[in-house]
Amino acid sequence: MAETEPLVIFMPSGKRGRFPPGTPVLTAARKLGVDLDSVCGGRGICSKCQVQPSFGEFSKHGVTSRPEALSDWNAVEERYKSKRGMIDGRRLGCQAQIMGDVVIDVPAESQVHKQVVRKRAEAREIVLDPCIRLYYVEVEEPDMHHPSGDLERLEKALAEQWDLAHVEGDLRTLQMLQPALRKGDWKVTCAVHVGNGLTPARIMHVWPGFHEGRIYGMAVDLGSTTIAAHLCDLQSGEVVASAGIMNPQIRFGEDLMSRVSYAMMNPGGASEMTVAVREALNALVGQIAAEAQIAPELIFEAVLVANPVMHHLVLGIDPVELGQAPFALATSDAMTLWAAELDLRLHPDARVYVLPCIAGHVGADAAAVALSEAPHKSDDLMLVVDVGTNAEILLGNRHQVLACSSPTGPAFEGAQISSGQRAAPGAIERVEIDPATKEPRFRVIGCELWSDQPGFAEATAATGITGICGSGIIEAIAEMRMAGLLDPGGLIGSAEQTGTWRCMPEGRTHAYLLHDGSAQGGPRIMVTQGDVRAIQLGKSALYAGARLLMDQMGVDSVDRVVLAGAFGAHISPKHAMVLGMIPDCPLDKVTSAGNAAGTGARIALLNSAARREIETVVRRIQKVETAVEPRFQEHFVAANHIPHASAPYPNLAAVVRLPETSFNASGGDGGRRKRRRAS
Amino acid sequence: MAETEPLVIFMPSGKRGRFPPGTPVLTAARKLGVDLDSVCGGRGICSKCQVQPSFGEFSKHGVTSRPEALSDWNAVEERYKSKRGMIDGRRLGCQAQIMGDVVIDVPAESQVHKQVVRKRAEAREIVLDPCIRLYYVEVEEPDMHHPSGDLERLEKALAEQWDLAHVEGDLRTLQMLQPALRKGDWKVTCAVHVGNGLTPARIMHVWPGFHEGRIYGMAVDLGSTTIAAHLCDLQSGEVVASAGIMNPQIRFGEDLMSRVSYAMMNPGGASEMTVAVREALNALVGQIAAEAQIAPELIFEAVLVANPVMHHLVLGIDPVELGQAPFALATSDAMTLWAAELDLRLHPDARVYVLPCIAGHVGADAAAVALSEAPHKSDDLMLVVDVGTNAEILLGNRHQVLACSSPTGPAFEGAQISSGQRAAPGAIERVEIDPATKEPRFRVIGCELWSDQPGFAEATAATGITGICGSGIIEAIAEMRMAGLLDPGGLIGSAEQTGTWRCMPEGRTHAYLLHDGSAQGGPRIMVTQGDVRAIQLGKSALYAGARLLMDQMGVDSVDRVVLAGAFGAHISPKHAMVLGMIPDCPLDKVTSAGNAAGTGARIALLNSAARREIETVVRRIQKVETAVEPRFQEHFVAANHIPHASAPYPNLAAVVRLPETSFNASGGDGGRRKRRRAS
Repeated sequence: MAETEPLVIFMPSGKRGRFPPGTPVLTAARKLGVDLDSVCGGRGICSKCQVQPSFGEFSKHGVTSRPEALSDWNAVEERYKSKRGMIDGRRLGCQAQIMGDVVIDVPAESQVHKQVVRKRAEAREIVLDPCIRLYYVEVEEPDMHHPSGDLERLEKALAEQWDLAHVEGDLRTLQMLQPALRKGDWKVTCAVHVGNGLTPARIMHVWPGFHEGRIYGMAVDLGSTTIAAHLCDLQSGEVVASAGIMNPQIRFGEDLMSRVSYAMMNPGGASEMTVAVREALNALVGQIAAEAQIAPELIFEAVLVANPVMHHLVLGIDPVELGQAPFALATSDAMTLWAAELDLRLHPDARVYVLPCIAGHVGADAAAVALSEAPHKSDDLMLVVDVGTNAEILLGNRHQVLACSSPTGPAFEGAQISSGQRAAPGAIERVEIDPATKEPRFRVIGCELWSDQPGFAEATAATGITGICGSGIIEAIAEMRMAGLLDPGGLIGSAEQTGTWRCMPEGRTHAYLLHDGSAQGGPRIMVTQGDVRAIQLGKSALYAGARLLMDQMGVDSVDRVVLAGAFGAHISPKHAMVLGMIPDCPLDKVTSAGNAAGTGARIALLNSAARREIETVVRRIQKVETAVEPRFQEHFVAANHIPHASAPYPNLAAVVRLPETSFNASGGDGGRRKRRRAS
Repeated sequence: MAETEPLVIFMPSGKRGRFPPGTPVLTAARKLGVDLDSVCGGRGICSKCQVQPSFGEFSKHGVTSRPEALSDWNAVEERYKSKRGMIDGRRLGCQAQIMGDVVIDVPAESQVHKQVVRKRAEAREIVLDPCIRLYYVEVEEPDMHHPSGDLERLEKALAEQWDLAHVEGDLRTLQMLQPALRKGDWKVTCAVHVGNGLTPARIMHVWPGFHEGRIYGMAVDLGSTTIAAHLCDLQSGEVVASAGIMNPQIRFGEDLMSRVSYAMMNPGGASEMTVAVREALNALVGQIAAEAQIAPELIFEAVLVANPVMHHLVLGIDPVELGQAPFALATSDAMTLWAAELDLRLHPDARVYVLPCIAGHVGADAAAVALSEAPHKSDDLMLVVDVGTNAEILLGNRHQVLACSSPTGPAFEGAQISSGQRAAPGAIERVEIDPATKEPRFRVIGCELWSDQPGFAEATAATGITGICGSGIIEAIAEMRMAGLLDPGGLIGSAEQTGTWRCMPEGRTHAYLLHDGSAQGGPRIMVTQGDVRAIQLGKSALYAGARLLMDQMGVDSVDRVVLAGAFGAHISPKHAMVLGMIPDCPLDKVTSAGNAAGTGARIALLNSAARREIETVVRRIQKVETAVEPRFQEHFVAANHIPHASAPYPNLAAVVRLPETSFNASGGDGGRRKRRRAS
């Protein structure tokens, strides 16, 4: 590297080196390990290696970069620009040659490992590094005097031109290779699955010549109730379509355990459910491909996350062992399968990556949450709860991560609630109760107005006010507690005790009337004593699970709480804490991660290193089995109070004053349970 | 290893060592690296580790081996012997403990790497070391406090109990694992495919408890005309059934090139042929499984050898490129596929190993011949010819191996011969002509008598004498040459010239009447001038191919000739040499290898190291393309003479005196071709 040779400095990496005049920018970038993309290997075809030279004096770098520092535009660049267009000032890195000292910017879209934009600012970044990549190669023509197969010459080309050693070919690739090579005049583009270290890389598809089209991957979050998928462009990392579908297994049972029971009671029942969910996945593929206007055959890979029961059922494994101690998984490790093995109609050789399961109750969905929220990389002690019918709970930091699941029941999703309904237009989702007047106001899904604002009645006329969803019932009960309508034991007071006619007798207990739509032919929406009990059961389970992990770790508080799950996105941190769903924590440290399991699936789809990462992390996670832990019962009972019978909530107390009432003495039958324990 | 500890000497290996009293024989064997089998891992279940202690004074070894040198019979051995029986004097190696100095014989059937008996004495031995083996393991029960999957605990057991690291599981294994573990009380037997160094070992099947049954593999020689298979017990190496079936692709064309033409001329023609041959393979599977009285699902692996066109068609690859220069193979390397990828109905997760191809005309069948006959391991210079419609020729020794193919045409198989037929009962297979009387005698397939022996007519009454097969026509023509009925140019003399009425005019040439069955309503079987010409074309091609390889290697003679191919087994070396099919060579150095391609397939099935061996050897073999080599034409023309126009046949001359006649001057039109060249 002679001192007299031109100096090139790449930004933003700052990598620098001297090269003989005439060295193409791409060559220099590769030698310096600069992250500059190329699919065609520097042949001026793919335009992935676009760079932006900066000219001027760069005292910081000690160079002056002059326009003549790069070779003149050549015919390849002219042709490319005229045919496809190119941003002014940009050059093709494989064509522009370094003639003098120069500073070169590599725009984000020209980086191989570009960052994928995520909506949530606090979320970890996704660095694009997919398992399946496209490679353009020029293959030697056959020579009868040195006979070798088309595949072997292609493998040689991949090794020589892309440093890909030990690549194998799928049988179908072999079938398409022969015509593709000849049609492409011995130039082809290959889709290569890079393998996982244990298995070799494999060629999945071959197109004649340079392939302009895109290839796609699908991240699937297979839930008990809904199946959600994102379709991603594997070259840009962008989400090009999203779709969801109901899990048709619901007809075999609403919740996981009822499906396990179905499998136990009905010979062939597990297979029926396997067929049903695979059909639904194919329907989802059709839907998402239609939305993106692509053929399903362009989907080269799917990543699947699911709870253990869904995981087993989609794999065709009887889930019956998951319904009883010791909750033994058939397999816990990550798997790479052929889509065809799951009857999925994607690309015929598409692969499916299934994230590892953590334990019999803590599945690949929880692993995906761990991948997305990364407690194992956190300096703070993080509590991550994925709230659903079953809550998965992670507690940890970079030193240690613990996990458990807790049977919260369906109340948080609006089931088993007297006026409960799924989150859909017309459902009450936000509630406030005036502590002075005890009058409620609320918002319903599909309308931005509060119920006491002008125009609300008109705005909701179309949907009606049909019920109350999971986040709505949590807010309602928390507000009732703050307004003194509900005592710490969870008993709703009478009209007399609370001073509002809205607390009205219902059987031997009381209920709070949130909305009376009967005049408009709608329902009367009440929060009943039974509703409160259902939520108490769920929140106690959630808290007890978290508390058990805290015990195990020997801590009394956590630094941060992340609420995950589609429902978690809608829970108000303050109300969750008033209810005692989660341990006390500064309110501004309680955040929502949305569908973190789905995000984790997307990370695994777009970044192959993330797969190795979560496979390692899952092995390190310590599992705590709530079902047989006696302290879980103790924590559960203590957590029945709202927010809690004994745990202090100093952070909450600084923000909210909770009335210390007791409706027990004169309360109806609803207090029975509490009385027993309070005695 | 204290000097005072008992000394154990294992025979026949002679391996010896000292062990503390009470060490089980199996443990000692393992520590010393003695080849002693065990499937159950020393648990007294499988009885594979039977050994035979020898008692007495062994001055050669310097020990006295006394009966008390082994522990007494224990309950496990008693139970085993009473239930299953055991040869007297034998012990279970896992139960018998070493108490004093002892000499232990390991019988052949207790060795893991036992030798498989081969019928031919000269053939290389097959050492049993299959790719798929059974392992009995005891798996940890699930523990909810340390959750892991059933598969992961099975993998741990395989690693700990069998040193099998990085084993993966097929999805179907996973589906059967859960019930098998529970039914077997956490003891199972696994069938494991050991992988090939690049891909990890994989569990293919799991049985509850100790699996008594056997597993099988199938070696398939997929020929243009027939498909032959051997079914082998993968644990003993024995051939338990053999079967053959016609290749139904014959309806698309008799020979390879006509099938390639069919694929070229008919859109979808290649696929039609793929479907046909795969159906035939499945029929063959059914047939061979029925013969062995086993379920096809017990066939865990198939090994496939085929010429390049058959190879491509069965893989679903259009063979059209093989019909024209540069004869480019789609792939030449060995492949391990799933049987399901070829629509084969064996075990659902069965694998298919396809041997590598050598060149566009020299396929996996030739590779299998190389594996069986092993010219690359020979000190002598070996010529191996696999005689068929297309002959594959290998020439070499441990220093160098060359290969080519040569288009011999179908005459050697009895096709394009006036009275030709396939080798079947009623076909003339052996011929002798008395040099003095010019009278023939012959034998037909299905009868041990010569035609001039008493009882021949009666013995052949059922089959009749229907035609002449490939080996018959070769002997007939060679005998005619030796009896002076045929001149060196290949012209049949007239009755006048030869002195026998059996040489009779036929058109403008002559024919020799071998047998007249017309009185019995059978055919008149003649050897016509056209027959001679057809055989001349074939033998010239064969000789020219061999000669080309000899040129390439710079030699004028070979040390040994091996005739391979089903037909090669029936060719008489003397007659082959009289015809000039092969170069001169001591007659006792010309041997037949039978179906060497099939044998090679069987070796690859039973010995995994043989796969690596042939993959390496094939890369080293130098390919010679006859189709474009000008010297091939020269050699072909010179080889038209019988035995040859110029090459000396000193070894042959020492055994046979060939009359130097010429029927040319007065011969009919049949001499036209010869005259042209002789001028």
